[in-house]
Amino acid sequence: MNVTLRSTPCLRCVRIYTSAAALGTAELRLPLHSKTMKRYITSTPQQTKIKEFFPPPETPRIKETDSSWVHPIYTEQQMRDVTIAHRQAKNWADWIALGTVRMLRWGMDTVTGYRHPPEGTEAALTPRFAMTEKKWLTRFIFLESIAGVPGMVGGMLRHLRSLRKMRRDNGWIETLLEEAYNERMHLLTFLKLAEPGWFMRLSVLGAQGVFFNAFFFSYLFSPRICHRFVGYLEEEAVITYTRAINELEAGRLPEWETLEAPQIAITYWQMPEGQRSMRDLLLYIRADEAKHREVNHTLSNLDQAQDPNPYASKYKDPSKLHPTKAIDVLKPTGWERKDVM
Amino acid sequence: MNVTLRSTPCLRCVRIYTSAAALGTAELRLPLHSKTMKRYITSTPQQTKIKEFFPPPETPRIKETDSSWVHPIYTEQQMRDVTIAHRQAKNWADWIALGTVRMLRWGMDTVTGYRHPPEGTEAALTPRFAMTEKKWLTRFIFLESIAGVPGMVGGMLRHLRSLRKMRRDNGWIETLLEEAYNERMHLLTFLKLAEPGWFMRLSVLGAQGVFFNAFFFSYLFSPRICHRFVGYLEEEAVITYTRAINELEAGRLPEWETLEAPQIAITYWQMPEGQRSMRDLLLYIRADEAKHREVNHTLSNLDQAQDPNPYASKYKDPSKLHPTKAIDVLKPTGWERKDVM
Ligand SMILES: [Fe+2]
Ligand SMILES: [Fe+2]
Ligand SMILES: [Fe+2]
Ligand SMILES: [Fe+2]
Repeated sequence: MNVTLRSTPCLRCVRIYTSAAALGTAELRLPLHSKTMKRYITSTPQQTKIKEFFPPPETPRIKETDSSWVHPIYTEQQMRDVTIAHRQAKNWADWIALGTVRMLRWGMDTVTGYRHPPEGTEAALTPRFAMTEKKWLTRFIFLESIAGVPGMVGGMLRHLRSLRKMRRDNGWIETLLEEAYNERMHLLTFLKLAEPGWFMRLSVLGAQGVFFNAFFFSYLFSPRICHRFVGYLEEEAVITYTRAINELEAGRLPEWETLEAPQIAITYWQMPEGQRSMRDLLLYIRADEAKHREVNHTLSNLDQAQDPNPYASKYKDPSKLHPTKAIDVLKPTGWERKDVM
Repeated sequence: MNVTLRSTPCLRCVRIYTSAAALGTAELRLPLHSKTMKRYITSTPQQTKIKEFFPPPETPRIKETDSSWVHPIYTEQQMRDVTIAHRQAKNWADWIALGTVRMLRWGMDTVTGYRHPPEGTEAALTPRFAMTEKKWLTRFIFLESIAGVPGMVGGMLRHLRSLRKMRRDNGWIETLLEEAYNERMHLLTFLKLAEPGWFMRLSVLGAQGVFFNAFFFSYLFSPRICHRFVGYLEEEAVITYTRAINELEAGRLPEWETLEAPQIAITYWQMPEGQRSMRDLLLYIRADEAKHREVNHTLSNLDQAQDPNPYASKYKDPSKLHPTKAIDVLKPTGWERKDVM
């Protein structure tokens, strides 16, 4: 069993570690015992810091390193308005995409020990379905380590195609790369809260190896199906984060109630003072996923070779509703081609 | 022979097309005959336009599409100060990188019909060595279609590594992706001046297939050697563009003397009024290559896994000379690790 204690554990921690050992699926080592993990919402400069799993590099000359893309600003109301949604599969291509997502979801649920309880029952509270903070983090980390793949593969393949076929890309590449970066920031944020053990690392390694190759060749074959696939995947991500937020608000994740978002998240999302709790963090991330859901469903509706990217375009009539990078406009099932071109 | 005439050719054009046919290597179809290709330096709104090989997409709602990265500003003096340089190979890794570049250069020279004349002789003027505008463009287009590969592969592999090993990238990815984007802009710019024929397209296709895979696996094996390799490649690029600029200034490329840079270039490099000739364009591109040369030699000098990217960092003492994104500071052979970390 791969459980490491870095300080004398309190009784509560011992319980957590013991249940982790019992779980026997992907396990996590908590950076320190859960009490010191809590960082309080009023951000006074000197606090008990959690141990850095990947501290920023220390060099005599360099102070800090910039991040690649500036995140658009989300208001709290906009994030609250994010809803679960499903785009009806309309043709065989949609069905391939949806079928693959359902299959993967089943696989992922098995690996991360997640069982979706029957809707509207009290089953979620039984040991069989109950999700602890640690089980959620395991799931998030695994999810996000995979989620960073499609945008990078799509961006790269469109870049190579532009070079090879000697024609413009019309702005798709950047949105895809930015999506990949955003997903990587989700991962790095969760890694500030829990350090994965060897089993998790191995799973991520294997999953990336398989998924990268599968997505790479699928994207060569049909970018349209691939974007639909990511759209459906993000539908699932919104469901997952919505459930976590609900559980947190229902008081079933007590450790997270006073947990503050890590500094990397505060900087990246430019979280305003007083809106930096774990709950807020989950709201930000869910909103990102909802945006990816819209973007990928929209891209799938377009002519992959000819159409400009609606998210990197200036509109002739800017007063008319059009796709944006932030969530001031959200179309959960995507924009139809005729509405944007 | 794949030569297409899109307008009644003048005598001069007929000569060009005939020599293209005789060349028998990679050939280009000129968008229109060479006279209408000229766009004059004083940019009055209505001019004879060259036919667009890849016109911006026309859609009822979208006006234009943004470009991904804003190019830093170069002054004319800074661009003039760019010089040919060579970093001495110091160890076996450097020698592998340098040897590969020399081999590739030989291959590329063969494909694009370029023969470097012995230095300081009049040989450059004989038919065997003489480079026409068309031969230069063939060479540039082939070169740039390959040059966009390494940055994208490096950026993607570092992204995947960050996801897989669950640690920060420390800013390398963006610089690498931006380099790839910059190279693609070089390619798109040259494509506004000449349209490649089927032989060229086939060569690019084959070259990308081989080079992408070779670079991909080499980068997995040793990113350090790969960055050194790109450093040496860019040394060659600076040599090539310097020679073209010299020939242009010596009056041996008369068609380019009055040719204006295409609009895509004016927008991307933010070329000031009165500094938009073909000569200026080559100066901008050479300066970009000189920057890549520095960046890649520097990256090769660093710890690939731990060190932050010196080009995306804030310095503790900003008054001290340090790496920058523009060419206000240029170190042709790269920064040594001790000078930046
Ligand atoms: Fe995510
Ligand atoms: Fe996502
Ligand atoms: Fe270039
Ligand atoms: Fe280059």
